[in-house]
Amino acid sequence: MDKHIGEQTICFTKPPVILSTGSIVGPKEGEGPLADCFDKVLDNILAGKETWEQAESDIARQGIELAVANADLSLEDIQYIIAGDLLNQGVGSTFGIRSLERPFLGLCAACSTIGEAMTIGSVFIDGGFAEHVVTAASSHFCSAEKTFRFPLELGNQRPPTSSWTVTGDGAVVIGSRGTGPRITAATTGRIVDMGIKDSSNMGAAMAPAAADLLEHHFQDMNIGPAEYDLIVTGDLGHYGFELLIELMKDKGYDISGNSTDCGIEIFDKETQDTHAGGSGPACPAVTFAGYFYPQLLSGDIQKMLFVPTGALMNTMMSQQGESIPSIAHAVRIEAPFKKAVN
Amino acid sequence: MDKHIGEQTICFTKPPVILSTGSIVGPKEGEGPLADCFDKVLDNILAGKETWEQAESDIARQGIELAVANADLSLEDIQYIIAGDLLNQGVGSTFGIRSLERPFLGLCAACSTIGEAMTIGSVFIDGGFAEHVVTAASSHFCSAEKTFRFPLELGNQRPPTSSWTVTGDGAVVIGSRGTGPRITAATTGRIVDMGIKDSSNMGAAMAPAAADLLEHHFQDMNIGPAEYDLIVTGDLGHYGFELLIELMKDKGYDISGNSTDCGIEIFDKETQDTHAGGSGPACPAVTFAGYFYPQLLSGDIQKMLFVPTGALMNTMMSQQGESIPSIAHAVRIEAPFKKAVN
Repeated sequence: MDKHIGEQTICFTKPPVILSTGSIVGPKEGEGPLADCFDKVLDNILAGKETWEQAESDIARQGIELAVANADLSLEDIQYIIAGDLLNQGVGSTFGIRSLERPFLGLCAACSTIGEAMTIGSVFIDGGFAEHVVTAASSHFCSAEKTFRFPLELGNQRPPTSSWTVTGDGAVVIGSRGTGPRITAATTGRIVDMGIKDSSNMGAAMAPAAADLLEHHFQDMNIGPAEYDLIVTGDLGHYGFELLIELMKDKGYDISGNSTDCGIEIFDKETQDTHAGGSGPACPAVTFAGYFYPQLLSGDIQKMLFVPTGALMNTMMSQQGESIPSIAHAVRIEAPFKKAVN
Repeated sequence: MDKHIGEQTICFTKPPVILSTGSIVGPKEGEGPLADCFDKVLDNILAGKETWEQAESDIARQGIELAVANADLSLEDIQYIIAGDLLNQGVGSTFGIRSLERPFLGLCAACSTIGEAMTIGSVFIDGGFAEHVVTAASSHFCSAEKTFRFPLELGNQRPPTSSWTVTGDGAVVIGSRGTGPRITAATTGRIVDMGIKDSSNMGAAMAPAAADLLEHHFQDMNIGPAEYDLIVTGDLGHYGFELLIELMKDKGYDISGNSTDCGIEIFDKETQDTHAGGSGPACPAVTFAGYFYPQLLSGDIQKMLFVPTGALMNTMMSQQGESIPSIAHAVRIEAPFKKAVN
């Protein structure tokens, strides 16, 4: 295991290259601060389909097709699709992907899915098992509310700590050759459960998993937060992210000056009524694909740690009085170009 | 991509070794023809817990711990747990595994999970990313019926094509060194959907995916079925397996003489009232772990193709009139010893 260092981290010897990304989002995301970043903004949350689940599946397919097209590849060039989502039995992905007829590895990691997918994808590339893979994660506000919370028709009031599931799909094509940003390391999370039971406060459930992951990443690599231009968590949202900053301080790390969260970036807290911010597998996936990847390409970000976080929640377990186990998976991405100093 | 051959297959250059297996099953499996094969047979389907979901989670943990102990390893020696199950959001695995505190990669592949897990695990080992991984899959008859079909309390009559979800967990420890059976190749399936909508006839939904996988495996490796002592599908059951034999004949391959199905092996059709046979992620996982792995160890099986099959079904999609997409994942396993000829 020449590529494994420390407890939870691998370093790639031939770092896989991110060749392209693809992003498609719903109307609300298209009204947010990152509106101009996405490849496609739907004008209807049903995406022309009859049900939310059909819409999510179609969005999952489109995200992958956009990413593959953006890499100037065709689906035949892709050896593996590696993807997942929040829905029961991962149907957001499976029903969308079935028409693509490519080898498929389905994942179950809630909102951390794109992190797990990029890790496994990079392992396949660095190990010589594939030349190109596409990794992706999707979610849909309406199908997620129906699955995890209340029927939308009830018009329930949302508590301030609740987040807004992002409608969309973010996809990343990773290849063995090219000149783009490279995935140089990956740290795989373990499940952390601090006993949080409130499914309307997922940030609090996930923050300890993110903190555990970051601590192990820093220890494994023998570095501190200052190593990175930017540390980007998945979808902790405003309250969960504040908690992460505090938890990291308790562990002796100050990440307050060079970190943010996709759930904070994707919506405007003041005007969009999204309370704690964005969440869902699509939240880190589309924010990375649309907003951060171009900054890596331009060299504005030189070295980034991308840490999608997942609340492994389930309504039946919550009904049985259980808490919400959480996990985080990190990939380290380095830009190939130094930004010119003017 | 020096290890990728054909459309869907990889060949390992330093074939990962199966160091051990672990198996735990419920009372009904403990009354079947393979009763003596398993490490542990529960005398109560609740496994001492209050709910079926808690029972399944506990079984998932125990299967992994059994496999690790059988390899004379401790959990600290395991770099990754790679596992999944049938339940919504994979809670069979996540709630069981959280206490183990090891890096976790969650999968979503229904009854093909152990095939996907062994593929990804082998890639991590062969690529030098880990020294030991444990791969696992679990299911529970009662939690599966509740999730996918009817409340058990209704006492519904089961159609003849329905299968019986295996209660249990099968786990496989894969390592980079050792003298055991080796995983020498893996073929990853694509989703196949022939329009079957009957969730009480999963064999019919999955057989075309298994046939598609086998055809690609034979083409990629430039071999025929005679290459193998035994081809073992996951959980097609009696009717699905018959269909597979026919579908393969149509493609020009006769697998009737050297193949079987875990769903056929695990229950006695005549006396156990299990209709089409066993199913569920645990079905191929425990049957491989308890029944086939010892035959590879002894050299009674020299070369085996293990093909777990998965029906990616979901009640909500079925209620919306959708069919059942299916998938299969294959690993090729070769025994290290030739059986002595007496």
